[in-house]
Formats: sequence, C-alpha cells, structure tokens
Amino acid sequence: LKLEDLGEFGLIDRIRRRLAAEQAPDVLVGPGDDAAAVVGPIAGQALLLTCDAMVEDVHFRRRWMSPKELGWKVMVRNLSDIAAMGGEPGHAVVTCGFPPGTDVEFADALVDGLDEAARTYGARIVGGDIVRSAVLFVSVALTGHADEHKLLCRSGCREGDVLMVTGELGASAAGLLAMEAGKQQHFPDAVRAHIHPEPRLAAGRTLACAGTATAAIDVSDGLASDAARLAEESRVGVSVSLGSVPVAESCREVCRALGKDPLELALHGGEDYELLFSVPADRVHEATQILRDQAAIAATQVGSIVEKERGLVAVKPDGSTVPLGGGWNHFRVRKEGSKP
Amino acid sequence: LKLEDLGEFGLIDRIRRRLAAEQAPDVLVGPGDDAAAVVGPIAGQALLLTCDAMVEDVHFRRRWMSPKELGWKVMVRNLSDIAAMGGEPGHAVVTCGFPPGTDVEFADALVDGLDEAARTYGARIVGGDIVRSAVLFVSVALTGHADEHKLLCRSGCREGDVLMVTGELGASAAGLLAMEAGKQQHFPDAVRAHIHPEPRLAAGRTLACAGTATAAIDVSDGLASDAARLAEESRVGVSVSLGSVPVAESCREVCRALGKDPLELALHGGEDYELLFSVPADRVHEATQILRDQAAIAATQVGSIVEKERGLVAVKPDGSTVPLGGGWNHFRVRKEGSKP
Repeated sequence: LKLEDLGEFGLIDRIRRRLAAEQAPDVLVGPGDDAAAVVGPIAGQALLLTCDAMVEDVHFRRRWMSPKELGWKVMVRNLSDIAAMGGEPGHAVVTCGFPPGTDVEFADALVDGLDEAARTYGARIVGGDIVRSAVLFVSVALTGHADEHKLLCRSGCREGDVLMVTGELGASAAGLLAMEAGKQQHFPDAVRAHIHPEPRLAAGRTLACAGTATAAIDVSDGLASDAARLAEESRVGVSVSLGSVPVAESCREVCRALGKDPLELALHGGEDYELLFSVPADRVHEATQILRDQAAIAATQVGSIVEKERGLVAVKPDGSTVPLGGGWNHFRVRKEGSKP
Repeated sequence: LKLEDLGEFGLIDRIRRRLAAEQAPDVLVGPGDDAAAVVGPIAGQALLLTCDAMVEDVHFRRRWMSPKELGWKVMVRNLSDIAAMGGEPGHAVVTCGFPPGTDVEFADALVDGLDEAARTYGARIVGGDIVRSAVLFVSVALTGHADEHKLLCRSGCREGDVLMVTGELGASAAGLLAMEAGKQQHFPDAVRAHIHPEPRLAAGRTLACAGTATAAIDVSDGLASDAARLAEESRVGVSVSLGSVPVAESCREVCRALGKDPLELALHGGEDYELLFSVPADRVHEATQILRDQAAIAATQVGSIVEKERGLVAVKPDGSTVPLGGGWNHFRVRKEGSKP
C-alpha cells in the first residue's frame, strides 16, 4: 500500500490510531486538530503546539514568491492554526532545509519574512535548525496558549448549529491561477491574498473569549474539505448553502478573465486562512456583531450542522442538493472527492 | 555569497544577529543554545523548545537504517538537546516529508520509532504535519521544562573550569564507517551506537539539579566542534587533553580493521549524544560521583577552560599543543578546520 492510495487524511487517521496520544492524561487535544493542546503548569491554561511546513514545488514556486514572502506565509500558516484554536501565539522554532548553492541573501530574506510575520502577531522565533537538503523546505513549530475551557476544537459542532466563515474565500486560489497563467500583474489583490495571507487571530480570540463558537478550523485546504474535517471530528453532517458562500471579488475577477468558476475556487481552492466555525443558531447575531466590533471582520452564514446520516451536502440556490466534495489532499490528485 | 562560503555556524550567527530574539523580555535563552528557553507561566519554570531534522542522503541512508531506526534517532537528537539544557522532555510535533511512492508501512514504522523514543524518555507526540516532498525528511520540534535558575547553557564556562564528558566517544562515527565499508555485520556495537543512540537525560537532570555544571552541550557535531561552540558562547578558550579523551572500544575495533585513527573519530566524528560540560575544579569529584550514582554513567575529564586568548588547543601526550579543529559542518566539506 502506497501513501497515494491512502491519501493524506487516511494517513493522518492511521497515525492517530498508532499514537493514541489522546490517552495521555496531560494531552487535552492530540493529533487531528488545528493545534495540539496540553495541560500547562497553571491550572486552566493550555499550552498549544502546532507545526506546518512548505516544500518547494509542492507548496510554492520560487519564481512566484520571494523568500521573504515564503517566510511570511509559512509562519502565517502556523499562526492560523493557533487562531483556529482560539489561542494567542507564543514562540517558534524553524527548520530550514537549504540546497547547496543557496545564496545567503535568500536565507536572510526568508528569516526576515518569518520574523516579520511572527512579530506582527506577537510571536517570537527563539531557535531553529539549518540543514542541507536537495529540496528547499521550511518547517515551523509554534507554541501558543489558551484558556483550556475555551479551546476551539474541531470536535464541538452540534446538530442545529449554524456554520459560519470569516471574510471571503477563493482569492488565494485565484491568485495562484493568475500566476500559473502568467497574468499576475493584472490581479494584484488575488496574488496578494495568495502570497501574503493574514491569520485570523483576533477573530479566533474573540470567538473563544465569548464562548460563542462550538467548533472552529482554519480554511487551509478549502471550505468543502475543511467543513468535512469539522463534520468528521464532530461526528455530524454538514450542509453548505452554495448561494451563501462569500466569494471574494478578486476571485471573481480572475475567474472572469480565465473562464473559471469562482464558486469552485471558493469551495475547493484553499489557503484562505479564514476561520470556519459553528455557532448555536441563537448566537449567530452575537457572533456576527462581536467579530465586527472586536475583530473588524465580517462573518457569513454558509450552512448548518445536520445529522451525521445526511453526510456532506451542498444546497444549490434552486434547493437541489449535491455531494460536497473536494479540496486539496496531499498524495492524491487535486480536487478529487474527499472521503470524510 | 553562498551558504557554502559562510558555513552552517556562520549562517546561524548571521541569523541570530538578524533575529536578536534575546532582547525579548520573556526569552531566557534565544537561538544558539541546545534548546531555547522562555519564561513559563509559573515563576521559575522555563519552557524549553528545540527542533532538529534529518534529511535523506544528508543525515541518513535508507539502506543502512530502517524507518523505525530513523524515527528513533531523530527523536533522540531532540531529546538530547533537552538533556543538554538539564531539562525534562515534554511534547513533540513532527513534520514528515514523504516522496510519492512511499509505502504506508514505511510511514508506520517511522512513526513507531518516533513514538518509542518519545515514550521511552517521558515525552509524547501530540501532532504533526505530513507533506509531499521529493526528498524524505523528518523534522521534530520538542518542548521541555526546567528550573530557569538551573539551565545548563553553553555560555556558562569559566576560566579554570574542568571540561568533562559523559560516556565514551567515536562509536557512532565508527559505526558509520563500518557501514560505508560494507562491514556492518562485523561491528554490531559501533553500528548500534550510530543507529540507536540514547539521550543523556538522566545525566543532564543530575547535573542541573545539583548545580554542578557551569555549562553543557550535547556532542552532536564532534567533541572538537562542540567544545568550540562552548568556548565561543562562553567567550573563553578550551584546552583538550588528547590522552584523556574516552575512546569507545567499539571505535577502536573498527579503526583497527579499517586502518583509521580512533582518536580522530572520537574528536571529530559526532553523533555520540554524550554531554560535554564544564565544572569548577573543586567539584569534579562530586560531578563524577553523582553522575555515577544518579545517572549510572561514567564521566571523564578531557580538558580545561582557559583564557580566551589561548583559543582552542589540543594537548598531545608529550605536552606539545596543536590547534583543535574539525567536526561536521553543514554546507562545508566534512572535517574541515572549524572557524569558531
């Protein structure tokens, strides 16, 4: 059996079963959430720990992204994981794999981008490891902290909750499309969304403090795939209302020019780093208001949490339903139907 | 300027200057030590954080190391960093970069090795990231904790201190030599030292608790190179007595068979994961005794801390001195003279 046959999520599930780390008494949240959470030395305070890597020609291409932008993005991917737990970021260590022949200026700029993203959001790089590697890669591990009783886990969705998302979707994937088509200069907003994402730390903190959200995940693989993750971890079904998905205007512009479907990118593109979260139906108004007032971000109702038996469905504007599939899956082809 | 011109240590120094993380008030020990230490939520307790990666054909070859052994070793490298700070290991996150076509059984065994090493020494894997990569790599980040007033930093050596090392040296490098020569079956002890090292957590803990050691580092790059690191961080010189270096018997056996110099391997081979540490001259006896009694490990005097102006010297048995050079340095050729 090859990793391609199992898929990224299949492999992760397999590893989780092997580790069964959830059984350790000091592990509050083990593998499978945005970040792990362990009991901190102060009662009620959880220590968060996450890691995320970017590999050349898998997650980025050098000709489309400067080393400073690469550093920014890989740090933001980790900050976004902390945001999706409702936490505050802490300290980072970075492993860089550099091919021989790498310019020192490249390494300098990469470090500057990592450091700028960390400092912008209150984190600090405190150490790292530099290794030689035939393929350029950057792997970041980041700590954070959060009230252990207010963690935004993936497993908290309840039937009847409303599914919401911050901001707008599809711009990052549209930026990538624009670059692949050699038209990046025509679509600066979409390109910027792809190479300079921002983590929704204020939104995560706001939702966690208020205790409004029952569950959350960051949109890294795509709304459809990440909604499927929420559903799987919460053992529920999800219904997404396709007419309600907030598609970024910059995504629409790229799609108009390149003859693509903006909704497809918003659903399956990924790397938006918005927060997808569930709230009880009677707290939707409150959630919308506190996110606007305290995190300066709009939130949109995109669907609802339904019984597990209904699975993962997308409701078209005419009321008909189709399966909700797709999203990026390492080791499988892109946008293949997901297997939740 | 290329990374090769600067060398691994030159690059690390450059990055440290760019980050200047030591200036952050909650960072007790920033980049450049075995692990970083930050202020923990309980007064006096430091949170440690380290990371270390292994890349195929740079740090290991698949034909010489099973995936389980690879997992064990990369986790031990991180545990050893925590040991060298005098800390207790905590929680780990693991990034695995797998080439397409990797067998699931390979990933399973790798995870088993990582997990076995973690559990053996009281740590837990709590999360990770799996990515596709043309080159197989495994990057681990590990937390730990320690009394912030008893951290074993690299910067604490004082003139007049005695330089000591736990255990014996050279076996790991001899094991690698034996494998390279296709004679691994004749030298099981040396091969085992290379593929199944053990972190000196009990020794680090013992030295830290007793407050006996003024500084420590783990022997990952080789005694000569790691002594140079201690000297640089402590702004002192180091004199190593070549006749006192504890050369492992398994190293001597391999060297006899292959016509190599065992002292060369003990000084410059690396990957021994013993602790190299300095103690005040009047506490050498105490250090030796507590390490034997509480950590079941022998410790040997291998030299002394001298004034900075004397630099890094090796004293031959006849009393003559030569420069102490060498050690593994990424991005440079192996065993080139080090530039401390």
